[in-house]
Amino acid sequence: MLNFDYQNPTRIVFGQGSTAKLARMVPQRARVLVLYGGGSVRSNGTLADVLDALKQNGQRYVAEFAGIEPNPTFETLMKAVQQVRQEQIDFLLAVGGGSVIDGTKFVAAAARLQDHEDPWSILETHGRVVQAAMPFGAVLTLPATGSEMNAGGVVTRAATQDKLSFSSRLLYPQFSVLDPVRTYSLPERQVANGVVDAFVHTMEQYLTYPVDARVQDRWAEGILRTLVEIGPDAVHKTDDYDTRANLVWSATMALNGLIGAGVPQDWATHMIGHELTALHGIDHGRTLAIVLPAVMQVRREAKRAKLLQYADRVWDIREGSEEERIDAAIAKTRAFFESLGVPTRLADYQLGAEAIDPIIAALDKHEMTQLGEKQDITLEISREILQAAL
Amino acid sequence: MLNFDYQNPTRIVFGQGSTAKLARMVPQRARVLVLYGGGSVRSNGTLADVLDALKQNGQRYVAEFAGIEPNPTFETLMKAVQQVRQEQIDFLLAVGGGSVIDGTKFVAAAARLQDHEDPWSILETHGRVVQAAMPFGAVLTLPATGSEMNAGGVVTRAATQDKLSFSSRLLYPQFSVLDPVRTYSLPERQVANGVVDAFVHTMEQYLTYPVDARVQDRWAEGILRTLVEIGPDAVHKTDDYDTRANLVWSATMALNGLIGAGVPQDWATHMIGHELTALHGIDHGRTLAIVLPAVMQVRREAKRAKLLQYADRVWDIREGSEEERIDAAIAKTRAFFESLGVPTRLADYQLGAEAIDPIIAALDKHEMTQLGEKQDITLEISREILQAAL
Repeated sequence: MLNFDYQNPTRIVFGQGSTAKLARMVPQRARVLVLYGGGSVRSNGTLADVLDALKQNGQRYVAEFAGIEPNPTFETLMKAVQQVRQEQIDFLLAVGGGSVIDGTKFVAAAARLQDHEDPWSILETHGRVVQAAMPFGAVLTLPATGSEMNAGGVVTRAATQDKLSFSSRLLYPQFSVLDPVRTYSLPERQVANGVVDAFVHTMEQYLTYPVDARVQDRWAEGILRTLVEIGPDAVHKTDDYDTRANLVWSATMALNGLIGAGVPQDWATHMIGHELTALHGIDHGRTLAIVLPAVMQVRREAKRAKLLQYADRVWDIREGSEEERIDAAIAKTRAFFESLGVPTRLADYQLGAEAIDPIIAALDKHEMTQLGEKQDITLEISREILQAAL
Repeated sequence: MLNFDYQNPTRIVFGQGSTAKLARMVPQRARVLVLYGGGSVRSNGTLADVLDALKQNGQRYVAEFAGIEPNPTFETLMKAVQQVRQEQIDFLLAVGGGSVIDGTKFVAAAARLQDHEDPWSILETHGRVVQAAMPFGAVLTLPATGSEMNAGGVVTRAATQDKLSFSSRLLYPQFSVLDPVRTYSLPERQVANGVVDAFVHTMEQYLTYPVDARVQDRWAEGILRTLVEIGPDAVHKTDDYDTRANLVWSATMALNGLIGAGVPQDWATHMIGHELTALHGIDHGRTLAIVLPAVMQVRREAKRAKLLQYADRVWDIREGSEEERIDAAIAKTRAFFESLGVPTRLADYQLGAEAIDPIIAALDKHEMTQLGEKQDITLEISREILQAAL
């Protein structure tokens, strides 16, 4: 096991009816800005319930900021920062999925920068410049990114299509309300993307090389098996409480730091996927479904031991040669994503070999030239991965 | 899945050499009291390393309190409370196992009671009277109780042999240093007790009835399987780093609240075991090894579905009738404890049927008359359990 330093102070209030408990969690005297995305939290009643709960708390000032995009942009979020300053907001409440929560984290950090600091530096330094942040909480509506219980986010600069991640120990939500019922109104496509996102988050922290971290391995496998078991029902049954509850909790646990504590981590799939989103507008979860099977294929030697363990413990594949078992595990993974209605090839998005050079150029620009758990995925290997994903 | 409210703010600094990092975690200007048990932390060098790290931190005041017992007593801990007051201590540092950390939690709470409040009320109310607590950290030397990452403890009143538990959200350690090397000097018996303790903590939160909490079940099973895999080596190989690292992390994860979030919990084994320790001085872990197999036997109907799941997923028992599989799972559990050198019968401690009445009387005195996940383990059923443990 590798050494590690783990702390996660986020309070999770989980279950049907939890939104009402907001009244006890938001500081009563705070001036609150409620941040959200499009109209869905309005049409499904979540926003109204949140505002009701705040009203019952006797909250003296509640403002709203709408319009945070699915891939939140720096440009939009800076408008929220301006509102925070103008209206002397001192507590942020994100109502939405990972994009809204990620965006809220950026606002929480950007609003506390010194006047002479450029807010874009939060992204450029991946969060290292963050010395202070506003307190914030979240009401989760879309299980996927785990942002509700971690301290990281991803923000895109619309002007340049740079999509960059940041994190800081100051950016954990104070609390997150996780009510599975809030997910009932999601379109199937978003639920499917969320299942894939949670699955790949887990894989990025699991499919590396063995370090005899047994609990972490078992826990990662537990999340993966759960997602395999519930994935199709989670997508197709819109109001099955227990299935959605298991999806929400799987997605939160997939990226709250625990399964990654003391083990190597990869994240190449995410980094390559981010460029696919930035250049071609493919949903984040769907980029992962394209890239992960190709990473498994191209990195089969470096990941051999864990691929065999994955085949055994997640898919019950125990017959055949090592190569056969690895092939079967990759095929099962691809079939699982496809069973959720998520394609796994660049060709499914009308992208051919000509798409590869610009992606490699973007990785180069963003200094993604040494990816993977051993920092040995060069641009050339990223090219092989993209070729395997055609 | 049941609704839940989960928060665990403890920072974990894990791995070889972690003690040196104390210098960055203890507030430099604090007046520190280092609490420990007997001579082992002195003889194995842990105490010296801790004091060195504090010295390097330029700590202005460091006092010591030695002599916290394996089952920490109210009487001893109140002496520490007196020292805290006399020397105006404002930070506590526990160096030891669960008993020292539990004791430190009690001191942290008792030292902040109002003058008119009786410190024993912390135990009598199971922590409900705690309105404030001193900040404290821990350096763990014995993997077992999970006290290093939870907010509970158990304290015994020597005068009356009352052994009572308490908890409060104010009693999480600010940090815990977990260096597996610190466990190398432990006697085999203490390591074995620790393996059993972690195993039974997991079972108390797992072996109840199904609520479709899939991640929690998988995670509990992951800890149980890990303990089964590493248990014998953990006991017999004193300096196998990875084995000890897995034991330490298993024990911490077994009782930090996560696997118990959203599921029913039992704790009958612990409550009956506490009386065995109080009345007969049997080590805590060893009482659990006596009681758990008897609880599994007597409660086989109420726990049937989870017993079958446990047989399948922890012991790979898939052949035979339901009764046979349950019997086999109970036998495997008993054999596992015995393989660690931990006996599983009252008779192994020269206790016969005559021992049962006083235990039942003690349970009655401590209002342990409705135990178990459905509060339906009456004193009569506790009697059956003890008879099955003869």
